[in-house]
Amino acid sequence: MLQSVVNLTKELISIPSISPLDLGCQDIIIKRLTAIGFLVEKMNFKNTKNVWAIHKGTSNEKTITFLGHTDIVPAGTINNWKFPPFNPTISKGKLFGRGAVDMKGALAAMIVAIEHFISSNPIHNQRLSVIITSDEESKATNGTVKVVNTLKSRNEVIDYCIIGEPTSINIVGDTIKNGRRGSLTANLTIYGKQGHIAYPKLSINPIHNIIPFLNALIKKKWDVSNTFFSKTTMQISQIHSGLNCSNITPGNLFVQFNFRFGSQITIEQLQFEVNQLLNFFHLKYSIKWVISGKPFITYKGNLLDTVQHVIKNFHGFLPKTSTSGGTSDGRFITTMGSEIVELGLINRNIHQVNEYVKISDLKLLTLIYLQIIKQLI
Amino acid sequence: MLQSVVNLTKELISIPSISPLDLGCQDIIIKRLTAIGFLVEKMNFKNTKNVWAIHKGTSNEKTITFLGHTDIVPAGTINNWKFPPFNPTISKGKLFGRGAVDMKGALAAMIVAIEHFISSNPIHNQRLSVIITSDEESKATNGTVKVVNTLKSRNEVIDYCIIGEPTSINIVGDTIKNGRRGSLTANLTIYGKQGHIAYPKLSINPIHNIIPFLNALIKKKWDVSNTFFSKTTMQISQIHSGLNCSNITPGNLFVQFNFRFGSQITIEQLQFEVNQLLNFFHLKYSIKWVISGKPFITYKGNLLDTVQHVIKNFHGFLPKTSTSGGTSDGRFITTMGSEIVELGLINRNIHQVNEYVKISDLKLLTLIYLQIIKQLI
Ligand SMILES: [Zn+2]
Ligand SMILES: [Zn+2]
Repeated sequence: MLQSVVNLTKELISIPSISPLDLGCQDIIIKRLTAIGFLVEKMNFKNTKNVWAIHKGTSNEKTITFLGHTDIVPAGTINNWKFPPFNPTISKGKLFGRGAVDMKGALAAMIVAIEHFISSNPIHNQRLSVIITSDEESKATNGTVKVVNTLKSRNEVIDYCIIGEPTSINIVGDTIKNGRRGSLTANLTIYGKQGHIAYPKLSINPIHNIIPFLNALIKKKWDVSNTFFSKTTMQISQIHSGLNCSNITPGNLFVQFNFRFGSQITIEQLQFEVNQLLNFFHLKYSIKWVISGKPFITYKGNLLDTVQHVIKNFHGFLPKTSTSGGTSDGRFITTMGSEIVELGLINRNIHQVNEYVKISDLKLLTLIYLQIIKQLI
Repeated sequence: MLQSVVNLTKELISIPSISPLDLGCQDIIIKRLTAIGFLVEKMNFKNTKNVWAIHKGTSNEKTITFLGHTDIVPAGTINNWKFPPFNPTISKGKLFGRGAVDMKGALAAMIVAIEHFISSNPIHNQRLSVIITSDEESKATNGTVKVVNTLKSRNEVIDYCIIGEPTSINIVGDTIKNGRRGSLTANLTIYGKQGHIAYPKLSINPIHNIIPFLNALIKKKWDVSNTFFSKTTMQISQIHSGLNCSNITPGNLFVQFNFRFGSQITIEQLQFEVNQLLNFFHLKYSIKWVISGKPFITYKGNLLDTVQHVIKNFHGFLPKTSTSGGTSDGRFITTMGSEIVELGLINRNIHQVNEYVKISDLKLLTLIYLQIIKQLI
């Protein structure tokens, strides 16, 4: 079993499946899942490949789903790598290659753990399932979100979802994510009146007009942290105004800013506060909001208890629960009302050159996943 | 004489000499000046045509220079014109066409006034001269500035300079400009550190960092007006930061702002105050300054007295002196230590569709110029 996870990880790393490409990674997994009795359904949308696979039990009381992705971020400058990024290489107990940690290693660990469980328990009384997408790293518009929408249209249920994103800090399992912050983006246009720079009284300069608003925006405290989420952060990502011309003042201005927020505040509250501030400064504006994900939290339940218990058995301490960082595909799964825990490899070198996973960590994660399956079923 | 100024204006309007093109306008004038004994020197630089022409007197004690330009701004949407912009048309006492006011009409008035003066006074005791450029309206880099540099390298002197820019408001001569504000532009780059929007603590967002500085910049009072100049104005013309991507915070920011200022403050003071403000907010920056023109003022002297006296004789009131508006080619002439007065047609419709000059105004300006020549010589 433990050599199998190393081999499968190497096999997946050798395929340069830069997001949203899959390039055959999922076919390798489909073949293995089919071999152990999974029913596999391909749910491909446009350039994105997705898999929904289930292994039925006798009663199907609960559905336990592993969620992973085959796509990777680009390798960057190949020459900066010690070993070629798509030529998986083991050196001093470490397996190097793009995606080793995020998340071909964790994906291999899930599959091998499932294989091992099914080989000992071909007949079980829950429902075991796997979702794999090839677009978690880029736009994520044709990946997990569409699989989830399809499943919801069929009234499918997922009770427990384990996501293989790299959550660990120093030891595999020391940190898990039991939720994620939401992400809300404002695309704001301020309208003024173009003019000659020598006659400011005849024009309305949108740059001058927005500055007091932006100054209030960056100073504003939106909320305070609660038990699960840190306080809301706001970051301005873009500002653009003006032609390439030093004697014209511009007619309008575009600015984009993003909120990362938890359950202590709602999207409606954030929008209300922004609009109030815009009106306070008498700005003529239009605003387009984009919700990339709502915050979600699994603060208790069987899944969280089980994962914590399993990790305590391995390490002697409970894992730290966290909701920090960016968004994950959990934002889509949560809309099915599932309990969600993210648990994966050590995230220190993801998205960087010389991404690697310790062979011992790969094996450890496989054993942890196996224990979680055993406890849940 | 008075029909001649109308004819010459029409002849010049019919040539679509969009800046910096001349397309033969200057050749028409050169021919006329040569015919009355002027020595004409072409001073062409790159795409710009310039003329330096002199009519020597017996003592050459003082040099009186008329300054004009043959280039025009584009006509805009031709269909919006009542009459084709390059087909000079007289209707109800008005001559329509691009450049009628700015400044082919005034240029024709100068030339016809000079012709009339020389025909009566072929021998006089001062030096009369003309500078014409074909780039006043666009970049102005190869126009009057280069003529002035050439003249300075020969130790030429200009004592009095009359510029034909349209300064009048309601009646020809009601307002003259005896100076102009300076123009100083700052091209400022702020350096930060690019990062993921979900981890603001790991990045340095230059948009957030510059906002308090910009807020102080727009609120700052730079100076107060003095007898000649209104208080300094500062306008931000451009701000750009951020990639077309909502989850990355940018690594740097560009902002451009411009000062219009008079003799109450120096360029060094403005630069010092800006640098002090940048340092107060602990910004990491680089700044590139561009001086488009220093302020200048002719607050007394023979030229100003003469122009005021002539206008008072025509209208019964003294002209209003002003230093408002944009820059003019006077910013180059002033470096020769000359007394400068700008006096031209009514500026209400310059740079607009249906630009027109009243025939009576053309004739009046010619008579005013003639009187000024007579008084000065
Ligand atoms: Zn990932
Ligand atoms: Zn002009």
